[in-house]
This record gives sequence, structure tokens and C-alpha cells, in this order.
Amino acid sequence: MQSKVESIGLDGFYQESELPLLLKHKGMATWKDGTVKILDRRKLPFTQEYILCHTFEEVAIAIEEMVIQGAFSISIAAGYGLALSAQVAGASIKDIYSAASRLKKTRPTGLALSRVLDLCLLRAKNAIKNNLTVADQIIQLTDLIASDLAMQARRTAQYALTLLNDGDTLLTHCFPDRSYVYLLMEAKRKSIKLNIICSETRPYLQGTKLSSWCAAELGFDTYVISDGMGGSLMKRGKIDAFITAADTVCMDGSIANKVGTYQYALAAYANNLPYYVLRQSGPDMENINSDSVIIEERSGDDLLHLEGKKFAPDGVLGLYPCFDITPPELVSAIITDRGIFDSNKIKNYIDAKSFLSNQI
Amino acid sequence: MQSKVESIGLDGFYQESELPLLLKHKGMATWKDGTVKILDRRKLPFTQEYILCHTFEEVAIAIEEMVIQGAFSISIAAGYGLALSAQVAGASIKDIYSAASRLKKTRPTGLALSRVLDLCLLRAKNAIKNNLTVADQIIQLTDLIASDLAMQARRTAQYALTLLNDGDTLLTHCFPDRSYVYLLMEAKRKSIKLNIICSETRPYLQGTKLSSWCAAELGFDTYVISDGMGGSLMKRGKIDAFITAADTVCMDGSIANKVGTYQYALAAYANNLPYYVLRQSGPDMENINSDSVIIEERSGDDLLHLEGKKFAPDGVLGLYPCFDITPPELVSAIITDRGIFDSNKIKNYIDAKSFLSNQI
Repeated sequence: MQSKVESIGLDGFYQESELPLLLKHKGMATWKDGTVKILDRRKLPFTQEYILCHTFEEVAIAIEEMVIQGAFSISIAAGYGLALSAQVAGASIKDIYSAASRLKKTRPTGLALSRVLDLCLLRAKNAIKNNLTVADQIIQLTDLIASDLAMQARRTAQYALTLLNDGDTLLTHCFPDRSYVYLLMEAKRKSIKLNIICSETRPYLQGTKLSSWCAAELGFDTYVISDGMGGSLMKRGKIDAFITAADTVCMDGSIANKVGTYQYALAAYANNLPYYVLRQSGPDMENINSDSVIIEERSGDDLLHLEGKKFAPDGVLGLYPCFDITPPELVSAIITDRGIFDSNKIKNYIDAKSFLSNQI
Repeated sequence: MQSKVESIGLDGFYQESELPLLLKHKGMATWKDGTVKILDRRKLPFTQEYILCHTFEEVAIAIEEMVIQGAFSISIAAGYGLALSAQVAGASIKDIYSAASRLKKTRPTGLALSRVLDLCLLRAKNAIKNNLTVADQIIQLTDLIASDLAMQARRTAQYALTLLNDGDTLLTHCFPDRSYVYLLMEAKRKSIKLNIICSETRPYLQGTKLSSWCAAELGFDTYVISDGMGGSLMKRGKIDAFITAADTVCMDGSIANKVGTYQYALAAYANNLPYYVLRQSGPDMENINSDSVIIEERSGDDLLHLEGKKFAPDGVLGLYPCFDITPPELVSAIITDRGIFDSNKIKNYIDAKSFLSNQI
């Protein structure tokens, strides 16, 4: 079974052809002839390369190795990955649960991944009950969720745009995923000029490779800085707002995002600048506060090398906590598909009206 | 004329053989057979390579290209560089002034450079008056200043050590020059255990290449992090003090140091951790406050590449302000050769007793 390929984009508004690669379905992960095809974000922006996964384990490894990144994008890859486990001849529901469990463990900090996999497991159980092909049902649901996530991202971007002024200079950190790219699309559509400063985000350079790429491709004045420079630029009046995504938003309004976010949030606060969090799906109910957020530790070796060349002498170790926690008092607003919330009122999101077909 | 090579180090206390390379005279710049020999810090720690400068212009370029770095180390290279201008046959005092002017312009933010060159110019004028060989006089003075700076750095380190506890974990940014290495030497001599976390300091990685190298070489537990991680580690209770050098200390206690310092100082303040500034020579009287500090802007291209490979797409520019300003309220103490000062009382340094032969 094939995912739908249409001329209209996943978001239901833009034509697929006018979307930058990272907003296209193929910019994320797709189901392709019984395999999962994932764009290798590590090779961007100069090389557009895909990997084909034939087993859920291959998808899990791709997520772990950051072929695909971002809380929502990895959840789509994981959904299709679960379908791979279901299409194995003789796969039992137990096997599918076991695959989901493996996929959930790939990146422990963000919870969108778990949520999508839980929806897929529910669909799998219903498929068995109703004698439907389990893999097909999981693929259909993941397709739908991919659409929902795109619409949700665009809606979030539209709310975010209401907080910005023509001519604003935004500082980003890491790659703030699809809501950020839709923010650029919407600004462009409305002829709102923004200047984008991207913190490079060592060690994987998502800021340089992905965030600056999308902004420059869409015609915005775009700059790259090192991860130590943003605070100083804020102090010198060169920045109007700091804006990121969040891998997790807790019910108390604290957020987990790429390590480096906390420092910038502190600097924004100290310089009376807003810090806006793009979090299309609102808070994660599982996290009352940040105490339950697991901070993923990645290999410290990544800090000792640049492009395969080692710069640290022997005996030196690297530390790489992948995320950090920013407390709610440093967050000016959390922007979702259901509107803009004060960080300390983000739990109101739960009761706000949704326009989506799936509870993602 | 040759600089003295003795078994005792420049600091007058340690044997030259027990000093790590960056504390040896040859770890900085030396006068060698009518040329200036400079250790290329960009190639450290794996390659120990020297460049030989035959003209003051070559020294100026070496400083600009960051063959040698650090406010005090570059001032020694510049002193010997001025001697090169004086040994040219027929060089007039005007030529020597013109060379000093060129050398001063190489790095506009730190003022130790100007101060050493002004002392050398004074010595040159006196040499002419007294019929002495100008180049020899400048070399003698620079030798003396190199010794004074080493003694001053060690004295500063001894004061700094009184602020630290056995088992402390220190966060550093960039390479805090000789005072930092002497701090490690003194801690080792007194069997005080310190753990050192070095912020890598993009784009030139002085944290990884120099700071971590010295600490690991001396046997300390040493870690490298990216420039976005320090604040988060402070918040998680993993750091006891943040410590850096300063390229300039203003009379009001504000400091200019490698860009990234301000963010860490903010994070230290927010987490009730001390931020100590090692500034062996106290404040720069020329700077009443930070308004007069020139923030050097280096090529933004350095932000677009890693190891010669470009990662930013076309149309994206890099920004590289080399330094940032940290206001006095974020600085817990400024540690000098004349003692430890509250940042807002650093001007008292001027009247404090000096033990040095030169007013550097």
C-alpha cells in the first residue's frame, strides 16, 4: 500500500510544489513499497539522500542515529516503522507491542513519539478485532497523523505570526521543526519581513544545516552564529525575539528543548525580550513538571571531533546532555494549534477546542 | 641578541622543565637569531609548530590570524615584533612608532597590547637618547615583561586558589591564558583536586584545544562541552564556579572577554554560582566603562565552515563578534596579582601595591 501523493501538501493549503523540502511529506518519512523511506537530515542541505528501512529495528536505529530529528518528524517515522513490524508474516499483537516498545526507547525526552505509537497500537488492536490488515491500518493512521501534524504546525505558525512585527529579527536554536518553517511560509505569504539568526547548534549543526537553509531558501536575510553569541546580540539590541520548538512541554509550563535553549531563555529574560515556544500539540500530560523528563545523554565523543577530526587531546572526555530544561518563568508564551498560552496556563490547552481528527 | 634560556621558568619559581608548554617562554613568543619565533596555537595540541617572523608586519599578521592568542601573549609577540622594526638598517624613531601603531591595530579589544608597546616605545626613545642599540633595548624590556607577566599570572593564580575548594568543578570558556594554567599548577602542587569543564569555544575551539589540553596534561579530570551546555550544567548542580580571563577590565568592573562569556555569567548569577575573572594586571584605566571598548568583528565565514567544509547553504552569512561585555553585577570577583577585588571596587587596584619591576 502506498501513501497518498497529491499535488496539495500535507497541510491541505499549500501546493506540494511550493513547500520547502522539509515541509513535504518526503522531507520527513514516507511509506514506500513496503519499506520506510527517510530523508537523511544529517546530509542536508547539500545532499538529498534517503535511507530505506525494511524492519522496525532499522527505523529505530535511524532515529537513534539522527537520520531524522524533531519530536514530530520522528513520530511519523516510528508510526511507519511499526507498520513494518506488522507486515512480517505471522506477526502477533505481542510482536507489534514489542516493536512499539523498542521504537519508544529511541529518544526518551520527547513524548509525541510515544503518543503516536500508542494511537497506532490502538488501531492495530481494532484492526485485529475487525479482521482488517494491521499494517495497512497503521499506515493509514500514520498518513492521517502526518497530515494532522502539518495542519497543526501551520495553525501554530499563524498564531505565532500575530506576535511578531514586520522587520523583526528572530533568534532560533537548533531546528524548530515544521511550525518554524510554516512561520516563514506564512510571513512570506503576508509579505512580513523577518531577519533570521540561527544559532549553529553544536555538535550536529541543525541551526546551520536546517534552520538557516529553510530561511535563506525562502528569501529571508539569514545569519549563523555560534551557540555562545546569542545572549550578547540580545544585550546589544540586535534581536527582537527568541523562538524555538520544544521536545516536551510540561503541564506547569516548563519546557525541554535542545541543550543551549535555557541559556538563551535566561538572556532573553535578562534583556526584556520575549521567548516564544512553538509547541503545536500543547503540553504532555504525562509530565506534571520537569522532574519526570528524562534528559537523553548522547555520546560525548561528538564534542571531541569536528568532521571526523579529533581536536581534544587524549584523556579528555566529552559531555553531551541532549536537552535542557527551561522553567516557565523564562517562557513568555507557548504557541499551539489551539492558540497562544501563558506558560503557566498551558494546561488550559487540554480543554481548548481542537480542529484535528486525531488526538495527537 | 638572544633571550635568556635558563632552567628556571619565566615565573622564577617552577623549573622550565616542569611547566606545560603554554607556560614556557617558547609556548608564547621568543626572540630567536634576529627573528620572532611564535608557537602556532591553532595547530595545538597535536602539532607543535612554530612560525618565524622576519618583519613586524609578519608579526602583525600572525596576531591577526590568531597564530598566537590571549591579551598577554600577543603583547609579548608584539614587543619582539617592534624590535624587528628597530633592527632594520636606518630605522628612525618615526618608523618604530609607525610599526607600533600597526601592531596595536591587530586586535583592538585588549589593551595590554597597547600598554606593552607604549613601554617599548618609551624604552626606544631613551635608547636613542643614550646611544644604545634600540632593538636590543626593546628585546631586553620585552624579556623582562615576559617574566613579569609570568610572575603576575602565578601570583594571580595563588589568590584565585584561595577561593576554591578541594573537589570543585570549574567551568571555563575559551583559553583563560596563563593565570588559568598557573591555577592548575598551584592546585596540583598543593594536592587540591579540581574537575575542569571546558566550553569548546567555537569557531576556533580554544577550549578544546588549549584549556582541556593543559588540564588533562596536568592530570585533572577534564571534560569538553559545547558552548550551549554550561548554563544547563550549572542549573543541574554540576558546576561550582565559572572562571575565565578577561581581555579588558573596565574601571567600573565590567569586562570584555570571548563571546559566550556573558551568557555563562548570566547563568552563573541565576544559579547563585560565583563567576571569577582572572585578570592579572587589573583594570585598564583607559576604559572608564564598557562604552569605550571596541568589540572586534572577525570574519563571519568562520561560522559557516567546520574544518574547511562548508555547512551553511548559499545566501547565509555568518556573524562573529569576537568578544562580549559582562556587566560588573554579574562578576563575583576580579582576581589580580594585587589581590581579589569586588568587581565594583576594581579601581582600587591602581593604588594597591605592586611587586613588579614594570608597570604593565
